[in-house]
Amino acid sequence: MNEHARSFASDNVAPVAPQVLAAIERASRGTVHSYGDDPVTARLQAVAREVFETELLLYPVATGTAANALALASLAPPHGAVFCHEVAHVNTDECGAPEFYTAGAKLLALPSPDGKLQPTQLAAPIAHAHEMGVHHVEPAALSLSQATEWGTVYTPGELAALSAAAHAEGMGVHLDGARIANALAHLQCTPAEGTWKAGIDVLSLGGTKNGALAAEAVVFFSPERARGFERRRKRAGQLWSKMRFLSAQLLALLEDGLWLRHGAHANALAQQLATGLTKAGIGLVQAVQANEVFAYLPAEAAAGLRAQGFEFYDWPTPPGSPLPVARLVTRFDQQHEDVAALLAALHRG
Amino acid sequence: MNEHARSFASDNVAPVAPQVLAAIERASRGTVHSYGDDPVTARLQAVAREVFETELLLYPVATGTAANALALASLAPPHGAVFCHEVAHVNTDECGAPEFYTAGAKLLALPSPDGKLQPTQLAAPIAHAHEMGVHHVEPAALSLSQATEWGTVYTPGELAALSAAAHAEGMGVHLDGARIANALAHLQCTPAEGTWKAGIDVLSLGGTKNGALAAEAVVFFSPERARGFERRRKRAGQLWSKMRFLSAQLLALLEDGLWLRHGAHANALAQQLATGLTKAGIGLVQAVQANEVFAYLPAEAAAGLRAQGFEFYDWPTPPGSPLPVARLVTRFDQQHEDVAALLAALHRG
Amino acid sequence: MNEHARSFASDNVAPVAPQVLAAIERASRGTVHSYGDDPVTARLQAVAREVFETELLLYPVATGTAANALALASLAPPHGAVFCHEVAHVNTDECGAPEFYTAGAKLLALPSPDGKLQPTQLAAPIAHAHEMGVHHVEPAALSLSQATEWGTVYTPGELAALSAAAHAEGMGVHLDGARIANALAHLQCTPAEGTWKAGIDVLSLGGTKNGALAAEAVVFFSPERARGFERRRKRAGQLWSKMRFLSAQLLALLEDGLWLRHGAHANALAQQLATGLTKAGIGLVQAVQANEVFAYLPAEAAAGLRAQGFEFYDWPTPPGSPLPVARLVTRFDQQHEDVAALLAALHRG
Amino acid sequence: MNEHARSFASDNVAPVAPQVLAAIERASRGTVHSYGDDPVTARLQAVAREVFETELLLYPVATGTAANALALASLAPPHGAVFCHEVAHVNTDECGAPEFYTAGAKLLALPSPDGKLQPTQLAAPIAHAHEMGVHHVEPAALSLSQATEWGTVYTPGELAALSAAAHAEGMGVHLDGARIANALAHLQCTPAEGTWKAGIDVLSLGGTKNGALAAEAVVFFSPERARGFERRRKRAGQLWSKMRFLSAQLLALLEDGLWLRHGAHANALAQQLATGLTKAGIGLVQAVQANEVFAYLPAEAAAGLRAQGFEFYDWPTPPGSPLPVARLVTRFDQQHEDVAALLAALHRG
Repeated sequence: MNEHARSFASDNVAPVAPQVLAAIERASRGTVHSYGDDPVTARLQAVAREVFETELLLYPVATGTAANALALASLAPPHGAVFCHEVAHVNTDECGAPEFYTAGAKLLALPSPDGKLQPTQLAAPIAHAHEMGVHHVEPAALSLSQATEWGTVYTPGELAALSAAAHAEGMGVHLDGARIANALAHLQCTPAEGTWKAGIDVLSLGGTKNGALAAEAVVFFSPERARGFERRRKRAGQLWSKMRFLSAQLLALLEDGLWLRHGAHANALAQQLATGLTKAGIGLVQAVQANEVFAYLPAEAAAGLRAQGFEFYDWPTPPGSPLPVARLVTRFDQQHEDVAALLAALHRG
Repeated sequence: MNEHARSFASDNVAPVAPQVLAAIERASRGTVHSYGDDPVTARLQAVAREVFETELLLYPVATGTAANALALASLAPPHGAVFCHEVAHVNTDECGAPEFYTAGAKLLALPSPDGKLQPTQLAAPIAHAHEMGVHHVEPAALSLSQATEWGTVYTPGELAALSAAAHAEGMGVHLDGARIANALAHLQCTPAEGTWKAGIDVLSLGGTKNGALAAEAVVFFSPERARGFERRRKRAGQLWSKMRFLSAQLLALLEDGLWLRHGAHANALAQQLATGLTKAGIGLVQAVQANEVFAYLPAEAAAGLRAQGFEFYDWPTPPGSPLPVARLVTRFDQQHEDVAALLAALHRG
Repeated sequence: MNEHARSFASDNVAPVAPQVLAAIERASRGTVHSYGDDPVTARLQAVAREVFETELLLYPVATGTAANALALASLAPPHGAVFCHEVAHVNTDECGAPEFYTAGAKLLALPSPDGKLQPTQLAAPIAHAHEMGVHHVEPAALSLSQATEWGTVYTPGELAALSAAAHAEGMGVHLDGARIANALAHLQCTPAEGTWKAGIDVLSLGGTKNGALAAEAVVFFSPERARGFERRRKRAGQLWSKMRFLSAQLLALLEDGLWLRHGAHANALAQQLATGLTKAGIGLVQAVQANEVFAYLPAEAAAGLRAQGFEFYDWPTPPGSPLPVARLVTRFDQQHEDVAALLAALHRG
Repeated sequence: MNEHARSFASDNVAPVAPQVLAAIERASRGTVHSYGDDPVTARLQAVAREVFETELLLYPVATGTAANALALASLAPPHGAVFCHEVAHVNTDECGAPEFYTAGAKLLALPSPDGKLQPTQLAAPIAHAHEMGVHHVEPAALSLSQATEWGTVYTPGELAALSAAAHAEGMGVHLDGARIANALAHLQCTPAEGTWKAGIDVLSLGGTKNGALAAEAVVFFSPERARGFERRRKRAGQLWSKMRFLSAQLLALLEDGLWLRHGAHANALAQQLATGLTKAGIGLVQAVQANEVFAYLPAEAAAGLRAQGFEFYDWPTPPGSPLPVARLVTRFDQQHEDVAALLAALHRG
């Protein structure tokens, strides 16, 4: 086991997948037109249509924060409300990017213990918004995370029910898919079933956590919602002049299913880890469904692991938790022996 | 000569320099902390201090538009005015990015035939602003382009005079250095002489046109002006989680002078091109000082070149021009024989 | 009792106080310079300094939403956080005005049953912000409402403790004083004691609910925080050309204590109402300290009052409330017999 | 002649028209619902429909800057372009309000000597925008001023031609009618002919310069463009709680033609002034069509008038002007003897 495999801190401590590096190198031969008018970008669009089995508009950007914020700005006017989970990345980890890109829309955050929203949670705040009228921001978008920030995964049916509730109010539905590949691999459903067939209008398609250098995409399944998107992206400084290098990364992940294999692999490592922790008497905060394990890790155990070089985050502890919570993330570039090493280290204490 | 060398359309049709690709590959070994807490980024900061011979704060971002807009947002409040040339990239090519990032500051554009502003041009609009008081946006920043959009280059003395005029009014000075390497190579001055010693407060340091995949940096020589910058970058979706891959590109360009060699090489090709065009009786719109040649190219000559596979842009023709204007850009990855091929094609007609 | 006295819906259903109307009429004699360069505005500044016993900068605007949003934009950068109560007017009733004026700052709302924040509530979210660093908006401002949205009133000591906690973190303190006159009348403290002596940096000084036609003011007790304010006001369309008519209203209220007499009168009516309700067996949700009464009003009683022409709002019911909550607001222009009429009507059922 | 009549500085140095004061006093009797749900506001809507002979949506606000900026924000997205005259109030006198309200749209200013745009001026910049594509803001709105900032007046035919050119590109048309009453009085056309019949989509209807205390309105003749307007107004702090007092002012001006009589009266004074100046050998910069006179006033003459107590502004002198330019504005509350007094003073020197 090499040293770096001891980090379970985040998917983004990972290197670039070799297939992605190779794709960048291949794309860097000769000149092409800039700003996306190039064969790699064209091929990416075509492949995305095949993968998602539908017409769509796919716009690569460099970061997940940009993808999310641009997506929300396409759905919500400045005087709009975006409903999301209270621990959604858009609400807690993006330093106000949605507020910036939307020119001041308001995130209305809803709670739940497992990171998943329920359709019934929307009724009361929407009714309140209607009652308040002009004094209240206008319900405009629902943003869901898949997998969620608690490592759980919505079923297509759950997504469809939430989307239906949102659409009934004229709201658009955004899916923050920073870990969409992990979610799809868990669900064993098609990308179409996990997105637009379940009512998703706009997807933040994650690549960076999945093996890219820096590549995400905003995918519109409802192309009429993409009006003005290209200029929004440009003025945000998110339009690369050498776009082929952004497109090449996503293409390498999508075109032969690498993204889903990466997702399934990381998920399997998370299952291995969850099983091992449970055997060791460590409780889990949530069912492990994607590539994140939230564990009630006693302070001494955490210290022991860290003393042996393992890295992971302490996590905000939900009210009533019996013990501190640690988050351990597994990745496409780790191996089963890396997880085994952590479990062994845990036993060593 | 391979096919791609026939493009003189822009610096951004270029591939990635092999040294930059190699640096990315090297950086992609093992795990590191994300968001810039990594050794490559630390090394980049150290090298930048050596290169510019001063304390500074350097923040990598992916695009020149982002670098410029973030820099201006650090200098100008929402109710501020940014003085710039009327053909400045920030004014004409960024789809309102400065207005977006500054939350609505106003660009006050000034004319000149050669793309360079004169200190004397500032006095009247600043006096008018003072006279108008609260009804007028507040003079806050001066943005200069080096090399300019007409391919000309400010001398350090010219920059210093403009900076002094701006500083006398409490304004900050921004340098859009998308082609700063070309400008420095032309001036044969040190990076320090061409920037902070000439009064520049914030530099958009260009890497993409110079051989990077996608890498620019906002460099603060007046660190007190960087207050809040890191959060501005984050909320703009410009903070890469895998920051090492952005830093590695800039490091590869800066650490042994590659950026300046690239700049000098492209400049030399532009000189070769300018000389050849002149010999062929083609007039030049401006003195060629960096890597852009603006030529009065008769329509038939342009058509002839394009028929032979050469690419370049028609350019907005200044009032009173005798002939249409073509812009031809030379690049780090081209060779003298590529320029010679274009000149030969011109003669073939 | 005339018909209109049956409304207990809000302070803003009130007419204009006769003294204010007279002041407008007096101000409308002859020409004066526009945009605030007039004697009425100058006199207002002088009177405000006397009333608050300190140097200050006072800027009239037309609405409380504008006053609050402009004040917060002076305290919080676009990447900043504003702490406030979850039912604060800025958070729930201004359709995102603070987000608009600050260019996307984030309101972080904290709960409490009585509408008052405690200094201890700030520690955890501020610590979390520091831990999250650049991913989290920067703690920038604390916004308090006086009287609160539950009709309660902070003591000067409570304000001072909250201000001290905020100042210790470098945050500015804003007081939404839409009902500041009612609060000061309740506290029987001086305006100075109730504001800057208790650490308030910026006050939204309410006039409209207190007898004006439309007049509020942003009052800076920390003038260095007013940097850029005048341009912010202008570009928000909040600078009146005929400023004297805004100033005249505030002057009429401030200059001989009319605002405090109005506040005391409305408070006395609220006390009368609270006492009467209590005698009638109606429970109160909060101690009545200003001019709002929140009562557990049975549905039949509410219907009975409305059938007799009385107006008031149903209010969002706190979790665990035994009965629906009604809000009844008393005003400067009502009389004791108006309250007595409502109480009599209640008994009639 | 009383002292104040010696100001020809601006329409906004004027007092409130007595009819407007009376209307405010009448409106201040009893309680009404707030935020516009009141009989005065309802009556204003009805009267406006009669006056303009069409369905429309009219939204009162307090300032012209707010009216203009809200109107433009309804027409232009953040990535949009607004074409206007280079001396348009929105471009030069509003401290970036349009940029603020639109979240960063860009004003593209076009020149002309008389303040009026020509339809042919739009073709080239629109073609350039299309050619630049995503790098250029999207043509979204045309903003015209009526009367113009040079005191000239578009004919209905001229407006119609400009509107047609804008509509052909999918752009909306805004009319800044701060002095629309003066323009209509000059044209002797109906309000309908001067606005929506000439293709205007949104009008800033000026009241303040015309005798109000502070009252303007945004009038949508294309109601589908008003989507979201009410929330935009609210979050801008432009929705008055005591809306009746804003509506009452506009109603007093509109309901029996007072606004047009005021406009005609001020225009007649301007004609008297222009004639007198011409007789005195003073040249006029523009044909006098509304209530502003721009005169080539020798410095000694200006000093002489000011020494006798007359006020007016020096105006930015157009290139090539033989003499300094003075602006003299006439008002509804002045009399012919006031103008005669100025002319007499001019002769006294």
